[in-house]
Amino acid sequence: VSRSSTEPRKRLRELGVRIGVHATGPHNAITDVAGVRVGHATIVRDEGGTARTGVTAILPRGGNVFLERVPAGAFVLNGAGEVSGLTQIVEWGLIETPILLTNTMSVGRVSDATMRYMLEQFPGIGAEHDVIIPVVGECDDSWLHDVSLGSPTEEDVRRALDEASDGPVKEGSVGAGTGMITCDFAGGIGTSSRRVPRGSSVYTVGVLVLSNFGHMADLRVDGSPVGSIVKPLFDGEGRRRRSYGSIIVVVATDAPILSAQLVRVAKRAALGVGRVGSYAAHGSGEIVVAFSTANPIPRETPSMLADLHVLLDAALDPLYQATVEATEEAILNALCMSEGQIGLEGRRAPALPLDEVARIVSLYRDAGVRAVDGELSTRGSDGA
Amino acid sequence: VSRSSTEPRKRLRELGVRIGVHATGPHNAITDVAGVRVGHATIVRDEGGTARTGVTAILPRGGNVFLERVPAGAFVLNGAGEVSGLTQIVEWGLIETPILLTNTMSVGRVSDATMRYMLEQFPGIGAEHDVIIPVVGECDDSWLHDVSLGSPTEEDVRRALDEASDGPVKEGSVGAGTGMITCDFAGGIGTSSRRVPRGSSVYTVGVLVLSNFGHMADLRVDGSPVGSIVKPLFDGEGRRRRSYGSIIVVVATDAPILSAQLVRVAKRAALGVGRVGSYAAHGSGEIVVAFSTANPIPRETPSMLADLHVLLDAALDPLYQATVEATEEAILNALCMSEGQIGLEGRRAPALPLDEVARIVSLYRDAGVRAVDGELSTRGSDGA
Amino acid sequence: VSRSSTEPRKRLRELGVRIGVHATGPHNAITDVAGVRVGHATIVRDEGGTARTGVTAILPRGGNVFLERVPAGAFVLNGAGEVSGLTQIVEWGLIETPILLTNTMSVGRVSDATMRYMLEQFPGIGAEHDVIIPVVGECDDSWLHDVSLGSPTEEDVRRALDEASDGPVKEGSVGAGTGMITCDFAGGIGTSSRRVPRGSSVYTVGVLVLSNFGHMADLRVDGSPVGSIVKPLFDGEGRRRRSYGSIIVVVATDAPILSAQLVRVAKRAALGVGRVGSYAAHGSGEIVVAFSTANPIPRETPSMLADLHVLLDAALDPLYQATVEATEEAILNALCMSEGQIGLEGRRAPALPLDEVARIVSLYRDAGVRAVDGELSTRGSDGA
Amino acid sequence: VSRSSTEPRKRLRELGVRIGVHATGPHNAITDVAGVRVGHATIVRDEGGTARTGVTAILPRGGNVFLERVPAGAFVLNGAGEVSGLTQIVEWGLIETPILLTNTMSVGRVSDATMRYMLEQFPGIGAEHDVIIPVVGECDDSWLHDVSLGSPTEEDVRRALDEASDGPVKEGSVGAGTGMITCDFAGGIGTSSRRVPRGSSVYTVGVLVLSNFGHMADLRVDGSPVGSIVKPLFDGEGRRRRSYGSIIVVVATDAPILSAQLVRVAKRAALGVGRVGSYAAHGSGEIVVAFSTANPIPRETPSMLADLHVLLDAALDPLYQATVEATEEAILNALCMSEGQIGLEGRRAPALPLDEVARIVSLYRDAGVRAVDGELSTRGSDGA
Repeated sequence: VSRSSTEPRKRLRELGVRIGVHATGPHNAITDVAGVRVGHATIVRDEGGTARTGVTAILPRGGNVFLERVPAGAFVLNGAGEVSGLTQIVEWGLIETPILLTNTMSVGRVSDATMRYMLEQFPGIGAEHDVIIPVVGECDDSWLHDVSLGSPTEEDVRRALDEASDGPVKEGSVGAGTGMITCDFAGGIGTSSRRVPRGSSVYTVGVLVLSNFGHMADLRVDGSPVGSIVKPLFDGEGRRRRSYGSIIVVVATDAPILSAQLVRVAKRAALGVGRVGSYAAHGSGEIVVAFSTANPIPRETPSMLADLHVLLDAALDPLYQATVEATEEAILNALCMSEGQIGLEGRRAPALPLDEVARIVSLYRDAGVRAVDGELSTRGSDGA
Repeated sequence: VSRSSTEPRKRLRELGVRIGVHATGPHNAITDVAGVRVGHATIVRDEGGTARTGVTAILPRGGNVFLERVPAGAFVLNGAGEVSGLTQIVEWGLIETPILLTNTMSVGRVSDATMRYMLEQFPGIGAEHDVIIPVVGECDDSWLHDVSLGSPTEEDVRRALDEASDGPVKEGSVGAGTGMITCDFAGGIGTSSRRVPRGSSVYTVGVLVLSNFGHMADLRVDGSPVGSIVKPLFDGEGRRRRSYGSIIVVVATDAPILSAQLVRVAKRAALGVGRVGSYAAHGSGEIVVAFSTANPIPRETPSMLADLHVLLDAALDPLYQATVEATEEAILNALCMSEGQIGLEGRRAPALPLDEVARIVSLYRDAGVRAVDGELSTRGSDGA
Repeated sequence: VSRSSTEPRKRLRELGVRIGVHATGPHNAITDVAGVRVGHATIVRDEGGTARTGVTAILPRGGNVFLERVPAGAFVLNGAGEVSGLTQIVEWGLIETPILLTNTMSVGRVSDATMRYMLEQFPGIGAEHDVIIPVVGECDDSWLHDVSLGSPTEEDVRRALDEASDGPVKEGSVGAGTGMITCDFAGGIGTSSRRVPRGSSVYTVGVLVLSNFGHMADLRVDGSPVGSIVKPLFDGEGRRRRSYGSIIVVVATDAPILSAQLVRVAKRAALGVGRVGSYAAHGSGEIVVAFSTANPIPRETPSMLADLHVLLDAALDPLYQATVEATEEAILNALCMSEGQIGLEGRRAPALPLDEVARIVSLYRDAGVRAVDGELSTRGSDGA
Repeated sequence: VSRSSTEPRKRLRELGVRIGVHATGPHNAITDVAGVRVGHATIVRDEGGTARTGVTAILPRGGNVFLERVPAGAFVLNGAGEVSGLTQIVEWGLIETPILLTNTMSVGRVSDATMRYMLEQFPGIGAEHDVIIPVVGECDDSWLHDVSLGSPTEEDVRRALDEASDGPVKEGSVGAGTGMITCDFAGGIGTSSRRVPRGSSVYTVGVLVLSNFGHMADLRVDGSPVGSIVKPLFDGEGRRRRSYGSIIVVVATDAPILSAQLVRVAKRAALGVGRVGSYAAHGSGEIVVAFSTANPIPRETPSMLADLHVLLDAALDPLYQATVEATEEAILNALCMSEGQIGLEGRRAPALPLDEVARIVSLYRDAGVRAVDGELSTRGSDGA
């Protein structure tokens, strides 16, 4: 589609870039947190209007999150966006439905479809059980996608839910990320994970983003100003969309932490967004939702008492650091894995030019190596 | 419908109860704030399932809130509920769509219908204008209403929007309040207003509630424990719904105040909810949205500067007091004006027994008169 | 001191008023929560300036809160006030110092004195342990107290801390409440408690207030408009202070609940403040701090994991109700127990006139009895 | 003092590093915002104990902030710290006292001294005027400073206030920053500014930090991993302090923005902190206070109405970007300008080694130049 489309796409690590200090999980994906499943419905159609949109579903505990709710927290870096159900997540510190991601204009429709899906799975909703409020996050893909088409449909939502699986996660212009644009490049869905040892345990933090924010000039890859360097290459590509865009970040962990702690984790994801280049623009919905699969909370128990096994706050720092790292890498994976997108009225969101990125990153890495060598020689001569 | 249904319904003031110290506006309704319109679609059907639900639409500035946004704020007393678009209201301190109220399971559908309605009115949405996030609040009417019916529909939403008008507002079991229950009595929609003089101006505060919370024993009318007194009359009426319910409060004012001030106003509405008897139960979504029709904010201006005429915070106290009063009275009006409701599986939500309430209130008023007389005699004999 | 000073003071219950439905603990005081201690330093001096002020100390877990921190939460109804250390309470969900209460101008001095006290008790602070931030709340007693006197002193702070004990708590114009005024009556410190059965356990909620808010006309006693009734008796008493005042509410419980739950409990205390008559004025600092003595959190453990025994949120409603009730009663106890106060420049804060209150309350109670009787006869004739 | 102490210190720009895209003001300091004054009292003593501490005073509008309050907002990235008066800043959206910075254990003492100073300046405080709550922020310097010394004193506070001036601001180990450590290097006080053109106006954003956070390995200079590169040079320097530390950020602007907008600006400062390397550790107090010198708010006016000239939110993006940039640069200036510090028990906080930093930065800059050249050649050969 775009000038870069013939390159085979690679994830960021395959370009030789390693974000941060913690190791990744086996898939370097949110699904490295046991029980988390991800499914996409990707909608690309050109008959009867240009559709470049989709749905992504994240199931926090397989099919079982309604009866065994997961502790959750959230943070709004900039709130020009929507995650329906957020008020209840914040109040109860729990998530009890799957998390759906889609385009802004379809939050209502996707929420409605998810409601029906949940009613089928748990017919007691609205009867012996309370009603539910689905969690549906959005970014705006209206620059590439014709929002008047009314997609996605209920079937698309079900597809994303039904096909959700563990294992590797498709990234780039897929699912809800199909029409999304990050720092003027195509790519919406990205994921990454980190493993954090703690005593005899190893905890996993996984992040999945629906990324749709930023200007090319601001894009940083592990601190290197890749966006401002490659920008001249794309000056001929015509006008950019007017909005700054948004990002929804979903953080999962198996570390035994509770809602107040998950709010704190969610805040750190915002720092990861900032490191890629966001200054959290006025029109940007930068919203983070975090959950833990440890300590599932039953809807009721006879005693209404629960024994929770909890990591103390003073031990959270490595998880914070892991969250910053995985968020940064998840966003960059979204860019790396998209082949570019052409959409509504022929508008183009180019693919991130991987060869150039690899070259730039390699130059910076060389500078780093020389810098370290320089330090070592200084050190040697100093006898320090 | 209920035992009280043959009584003609009266608003609280007609029973001789005057909440607080400030005067009401001409309609004692949110529509006393110039420009505010309210419309209802009431859905009561028994064929093909029991429908007891509806939609209520509040237009903050006639049809024009998209181009001339209103400053707004919100407060969540307890967040086990949903007002879609709340995150953006909080971030931007603005409302740019009508406010819709409906049942919990229909938030998605009503949001979707409102989106389509707005697209028709302002075709530039998603093109030269940003996309929008409709403001849709909910309470749960699933005890009286069969949520599997999928009502309300898009047509119902349009009806509520199209028929919205200024002037008196229908109250009780109408619109979104059709299947709602307050302190075990039928009645969801109520409204009230206050006029607050300030220098040479008079500001109006108007409140509309979608009320659906509480237990009968907790119901207070101007401080009198009416609920616990009348409760024995209803002990035969069978089981009560299991949930505590919720309340959405919408506060409008023409006082020239900005978003941070409207957040503060919204908090005071919560105190009014508390005075009626709420302790903000775990399962209750008690959410307040407040807006001011003064200082409309254009989407853009050439200079991006605005001259705002603003009341200083130190002058807000009478507006706070007015907000507490109007919220309390709006909830009680919802109860007073409902004729009761019989719904799903023959479940009954009785009407508030107005004769009894009038009698009780009169006894308490007499006690007050005697108390004052006693004070006066004390005072006389004291020479104080 | 005031016209009412010859009456022996009684707590609210001794006047025959019972707030709410839950039973009180043995002392009807915050000290009914095992481990909580309260101490006062009351400063009333007329030489070298008029001192009407003091310090109140609340020790959440005897002397041990530094090493075994208590889970905590807070809520700001209106923030024109200060609780130093609040930011850390909110972030960590913990309290690790005693809670001190004093006058506004002395927060710095009392914080400094508390710091020194803690350094003596735990010399490792600032060395092997982190530094601490004392929790010091305030209200403004500058209408009765000459703030230029620089009282209380470090010795006063130590006295309050050293004399803190369990058992009955002195109320009225004592400790930090010495110069405080509630609804134009003297009285700052009040307390109350509730016992809430849950399964085989009984949990206690205790509240202590430093109350200094409101206008006489707004004062309600269990819903009855006592303030507006007695107001004419006090119209000759000269000008009232200009500010609306503030209230600090401290909620303690032995229920096993964590920080996010304690935030929710703290919000309910605000509803209790509202029931007494507050509309949370612009200039009012209405701040609630809540803590639980269950699940103390050690500074460190080898594993950094803790096993917490926690009550589920869905079981919190009785605790919420108990918090509203105990807060309302604690404020009224502060009024009932003060003998009135004459302070700076001969300004008078009268005592609440207990005989009149008893008479008024009795008239309202009679009205209630008649109302119930009326209902019973209605019911009888109805055959309902 | 440290190994680098013989180098003359330079600010970051003098090393050839330019953070971001916006121009700086004439002093590249918070004092570039007209009316803002900064003063330091630096306390370095070795007799009778090791004192390495101080006070920094920021006067938002010369001496006049009490009568003409400045609109203000705040954001807490991580709240393990204290800014006394923060609750009122958040509630009223105003600052009405100078802003003082000092060490954690001295917040009470400095607040008390500031109270006295204000009483002298405005004797009506606590009489015709309300009482005040001074704004005092802190970081913990107890690794280098002996907190048992009880410094700073009231005289130190007055010195900082009295000597506050416009023009260049001393940076590094001065004032409150004397004993502070950033990423294991000495240096606490830094400042920077940006000028943002908007229509026919140019707005200034100025930032001053009291920086005391982070680990050396995390330090980034304009994205380059300087900390991890120079870390081996300092491995012999003995143990590091145990805590992660904190940062207080003060943002000033002359852009006409109000409290809700200043909250948004404050959030962006957090992103700047993140870019230097913070992950907002559990024990870190990362607190931002922002104010605008435009639209001063009088304590009272006859009408209680104000005409405010306000920049619309949709125009804030350049200010957000400027805030991120200036915060990042202010922190780095704190490091660049400190000569290192030796304190309590001979503990050493080395100076940032400027020669090495310049060398590293130059290597990275060269990499950037080569990368751009590479792009240009790609572009040339591509004909793009």
